Amino acid sequence: MSVTAPAGFVAGGAAAGIKPSGQLDLAVVATADARAVSAAGVFTSNLAPAAPVMVSRAHLAASGGRAAAVVVNAGNANAATGIAGRANAERTAALAATGLGASSEEVLVCSTGIIGVPLPMELLDAALPPLVTRLTGDDAAATAAATAIMTTDTKMKQTKVDGEGFVVGGMGKGAAMLAPDMATMLAVLTTDAAVDASALARMLRDGMARSFNAVSIDGCTSTNDTVLVLASGSAGPTDEGALAEALHGACTDLATQMVADAEGATRVVRVAVRGAADDADARRAARRVADSALVKCSLHGGDPYWGRIVSELGSAGVTFDPERVSVSYGGVTTCRKGVAAAHDESAVRSHMAGRHVELQADLGLGTGEAVVLTADLGPGYIDENMRTS
Amino acid sequence: MSVTAPAGFVAGGAAAGIKPSGQLDLAVVATADARAVSAAGVFTSNLAPAAPVMVSRAHLAASGGRAAAVVVNAGNANAATGIAGRANAERTAALAATGLGASSEEVLVCSTGIIGVPLPMELLDAALPPLVTRLTGDDAAATAAATAIMTTDTKMKQTKVDGEGFVVGGMGKGAAMLAPDMATMLAVLTTDAAVDASALARMLRDGMARSFNAVSIDGCTSTNDTVLVLASGSAGPTDEGALAEALHGACTDLATQMVADAEGATRVVRVAVRGAADDADARRAARRVADSALVKCSLHGGDPYWGRIVSELGSAGVTFDPERVSVSYGGVTTCRKGVAAAHDESAVRSHMAGRHVELQADLGLGTGEAVVLTADLGPGYIDENMRTS
Repeated sequence: MSVTAPAGFVAGGAAAGIKPSGQLDLAVVATADARAVSAAGVFTSNLAPAAPVMVSRAHLAASGGRAAAVVVNAGNANAATGIAGRANAERTAALAATGLGASSEEVLVCSTGIIGVPLPMELLDAALPPLVTRLTGDDAAATAAATAIMTTDTKMKQTKVDGEGFVVGGMGKGAAMLAPDMATMLAVLTTDAAVDASALARMLRDGMARSFNAVSIDGCTSTNDTVLVLASGSAGPTDEGALAEALHGACTDLATQMVADAEGATRVVRVAVRGAADDADARRAARRVADSALVKCSLHGGDPYWGRIVSELGSAGVTFDPERVSVSYGGVTTCRKGVAAAHDESAVRSHMAGRHVELQADLGLGTGEAVVLTADLGPGYIDENMRTS
Repeated sequence: MSVTAPAGFVAGGAAAGIKPSGQLDLAVVATADARAVSAAGVFTSNLAPAAPVMVSRAHLAASGGRAAAVVVNAGNANAATGIAGRANAERTAALAATGLGASSEEVLVCSTGIIGVPLPMELLDAALPPLVTRLTGDDAAATAAATAIMTTDTKMKQTKVDGEGFVVGGMGKGAAMLAPDMATMLAVLTTDAAVDASALARMLRDGMARSFNAVSIDGCTSTNDTVLVLASGSAGPTDEGALAEALHGACTDLATQMVADAEGATRVVRVAVRGAADDADARRAARRVADSALVKCSLHGGDPYWGRIVSELGSAGVTFDPERVSVSYGGVTTCRKGVAAAHDESAVRSHMAGRHVELQADLGLGTGEAVVLTADLGPGYIDENMRTS
């Protein structure tokens, strides 16, 4: 499975020494023949983007949406590192390009880790050239790559979606900003479908809007968030709708794995809002609830405190009538028309004691709806984030 | 000190039995002669306001900004309680009005506590009439009132500011939404200055903007947040600028006490942003930093992770240039022009180990500036908020 599942891709991982632990921290995904293929990316909206984000954006623009490889390092975000940081990101791409026989503009780069510390370039100089000579298409290589991009993730995140005559594979790490010194949600997707770059970019944006962008752990937008996709074309032309659906499925699978592995999280929570004036209001309302530290503490405690949900909806900046709202947990309505509803309390408590919680709010106003995934807020989150070292 | 410090006010507290603990939970502040005087209020912007918020707003409108008394109960928010909740808030005002010989519209009401549970009106029926017969102007009565409005507060919050020929007193509880089953920031201010209601309302709004509205604990806006002020006029006419300054001073004092007592907080943090394109951008940027769970975890750990500050500023939705930003802790600059700056690390760690932390960001763009107070995010916050019971 993972990034080498589609035909035409190779991968590999190495321990460059960027992570003080000595674990794998450098990954490469490339086309098997080092040929540039259709590629697209979606990047953080943060106005302080990391150097690799700036460089990858520029490379995709310069190449007209084509790439032969992606290099990812973990342990250092190469963010807030100024001109030297951009030079290091460019040098990383050039090192891989030289080894592969591609041009620098055909290599994309991602980094994840501590912000504000120069990338230890001497470690990449030593580890990247040998790594690109030993990329393979087997599962072990894909697993090494998926392992190398982990930071505080406790589990490797891979996905594979089989389409009609094509395959989508992928690996990812993090969820929004998850870690102490490690930031960033990263995902690298591959497919053997044949598709032009502009269609691929459109599909990626659409798939993101309904998956990663619907994930909210702490409301923070990292300096390094990046999702990339490369399409080798080895499987030939594909139905665009089917490919879009498969890309969306892969994104959703990775996003769900990220939420489930959010730091200190004990529950995965699906916040579904309907009955909003429109979809934009529904998204804003769902995100407000999902981002609320108070709601997330209640979720950690398995406590169905619907009053907090109503309070967050009332301050979400959306059209709202407190006398029309209802709130349900796992399908059991606890608040109807803005006031307490008699309900089976043991059924609700039992639902909330589980690992997957469904939180539903109906604003009773229109047809707008949205879903956001989040996690509870437990002591583990604080433990992981209170110190960088 | 506190609400009875200005001439012309009496107060008292009682244990009505609303708090299961049996502690004081009912407070009254009134004019000594039960005469209605100039009054003003600022209320939550939440679109699901609690019944007492709706009733107090209506009373101030009906009376043209005059009030004789304020009744506050703790232990139950009377929020998301529908028409019955509004009737209970009206009945609370009427009970006090009858006892005092005032009209119902001259009594304002506040509640704080659990959302979505009917106010136990029989307890107020029993406790409020005797309480209003034994209000006094001594310190013990003011202390009882200030104690009765506490929820998860660990310390009573009172203030007194001496002006030229007048006094401002006040009591408060909470900080944004602080508690498990208890929401709400409440404050009741009194002054013996003579001032008309419209000028008083203007001064209160201005004083709020620079104090309570600059407090951010978890970014939540409660259903019950209320700040009220009554001016007895006993001290005669007053310079308006001096009164506005004294009101602002009282608000700031209470706000600082609230932040210091925020649940689970171990540090009070002053986030000062300058160099923004304008003051609105500076406020938005400072609030983004102050609301960030990641920044607050770093503050809990005493860790000067400036990269996170830059990342939050970059996603705050304000004009931003990563190559112009600088970040300082306690006046020691750790990031200059967007990259790490050599600095005295022990000085920064020592500053951050203290109870008061100064976090300064200069966007390097213009003259906009703002200050927001916040607290760190520690395990105590989760402990207090994970269960309502």
